[in-house]
Amino acid sequence: MRFELTLLGTNSALPAHGRFPSAQALQVQGNIYLADCGEGAQMRMRAFGIRESRIGQVFISHLHGDHIYGLIGWLTSQSLNNRTAPLDIFAPHGLEEIIRVQLRYAGPLTFPLAFHTIDPDTHGRIFEDKLIEVWTLPLKHRIPTCGFLFREKERPRNIRPECIEAYDIPYQAIPGIKGGADFRPPNGRLIPNAELTVAPPRPHSYAYCSDTAYHEPLIPLIEGVDLLYHESTFCEAQSAQAAETGHSTARQAANIARQAGVGRLLLGHYSSRYQDLSPFLEEARAVFPNTELGVDGGVWEVGGQRI
Amino acid sequence: MRFELTLLGTNSALPAHGRFPSAQALQVQGNIYLADCGEGAQMRMRAFGIRESRIGQVFISHLHGDHIYGLIGWLTSQSLNNRTAPLDIFAPHGLEEIIRVQLRYAGPLTFPLAFHTIDPDTHGRIFEDKLIEVWTLPLKHRIPTCGFLFREKERPRNIRPECIEAYDIPYQAIPGIKGGADFRPPNGRLIPNAELTVAPPRPHSYAYCSDTAYHEPLIPLIEGVDLLYHESTFCEAQSAQAAETGHSTARQAANIARQAGVGRLLLGHYSSRYQDLSPFLEEARAVFPNTELGVDGGVWEVGGQRI
Repeated sequence: MRFELTLLGTNSALPAHGRFPSAQALQVQGNIYLADCGEGAQMRMRAFGIRESRIGQVFISHLHGDHIYGLIGWLTSQSLNNRTAPLDIFAPHGLEEIIRVQLRYAGPLTFPLAFHTIDPDTHGRIFEDKLIEVWTLPLKHRIPTCGFLFREKERPRNIRPECIEAYDIPYQAIPGIKGGADFRPPNGRLIPNAELTVAPPRPHSYAYCSDTAYHEPLIPLIEGVDLLYHESTFCEAQSAQAAETGHSTARQAANIARQAGVGRLLLGHYSSRYQDLSPFLEEARAVFPNTELGVDGGVWEVGGQRI
Repeated sequence: MRFELTLLGTNSALPAHGRFPSAQALQVQGNIYLADCGEGAQMRMRAFGIRESRIGQVFISHLHGDHIYGLIGWLTSQSLNNRTAPLDIFAPHGLEEIIRVQLRYAGPLTFPLAFHTIDPDTHGRIFEDKLIEVWTLPLKHRIPTCGFLFREKERPRNIRPECIEAYDIPYQAIPGIKGGADFRPPNGRLIPNAELTVAPPRPHSYAYCSDTAYHEPLIPLIEGVDLLYHESTFCEAQSAQAAETGHSTARQAANIARQAGVGRLLLGHYSSRYQDLSPFLEEARAVFPNTELGVDGGVWEVGGQRI
């Protein structure tokens, strides 16, 4: 199953060095889920080839401007493109007021927009569809903030194509076999399910931790995820400033990744004070070797490599 | 006097083809004036080297999103940069509510912000400082909209340096002479002002006409300006759509420029349907030869050439 992350912006509050503020697009099969929507996200989507009409859900981690100021512009553009498909926005209390005031001046949208207020201080499942579940991940920041865990659902077992022919399995029996049932051909012996099917690929998971100080309660919630994006606004030399502003250093992000036993760590949300990001990578890799620098426009397969 | 226009965005509502929505920076000596502030304007300012702390006034032509959605992000960034200098925003009724709601969630700014409500349907002077005057230019759009005329003030005459020495002119007499006074040296003949001074360069003027249908009442208000930016959302083949949406074609923009006898016409506010803009230029130059395509990042000397 296609499960890909595209980073639309990797800078913290003050856009700089060609890096835009936070926004991410997660593609799961043909669906796209947006996580945060900083200013200019729509320009990035167009530049990086994101099919915007495929976005059905937007998840907002908190109400700091660098995570939301691109939302009104993107909504307006969807309307100018005559979108009719409904859109769901999951966000902490307050976003709806911010957006509705602006829509009152901009005029009505061409599509239904629903706001779902989430509680950033609780770990809970806030969304599911056929493909994924989304869970909040309480973080430690200056205002109520949560990350999001995107978890692929367990898929049914795959039937071996050669068995369909060999045992003349009728079409109607296939869903049951995929669900784990055995099969008895007319006048034949019972074929156990393990002979008929192979296990589906292991479901993958991605955790987006947008803005947070070093926060150990996060560790059990993201244990073993394939891909973790953990903010690293500063390097260790600025650890005091990180603590003061509710942010993490690259080393702290790597510490979380190591303790949670994740597959791969992506850094991001860099302060504008850094043009060269190589110290971030060096610092994090000393603690957690499978670390990469998040970059605007970078695409990662959640269960695999950078694409 | 330095009087330069930098285009930060030249696309209409839906950003496309690398073109950002409307925003312009007008530099007059060391001051910078911002006209409109579409999404991503702050990224453009940084990319094009605009010294943002020099911006003291922002002029907003109307409340469509592609002219204002970059404002809150830029204000927030100014605050993150610890700006203390006051900022004045001149805009139609409504902008203050839009911005104040967002600031309520973003927290207070580090600098004083004053809103000045303007009437887009009246031609009047809304601002002046030592260097320039700014006048509203009522336009014809779907909502109340005005352009802005930026006019350099007449400067005092320049004293000839050789005269200061020749006639031993005391420091205290210089302002009077610059203002037109004659000078009588001790025990000497009266030296007429025309011998002591040369006329200053002619004041220049720039007119920004953001969003408008073809609108002849505009012509006398912009007569003879050195530089006119007139929106051309469409080409003549889409003139029906232009009329329907309250926009102009390139040929209509050129017609206004020709009738107003302006020095140079810049086109902009292009619809996202056009990737190649050469038809705009061709169409407009057939009517008004001294036309250029506005481009993101382009800089023009108001009384001169593209820089």
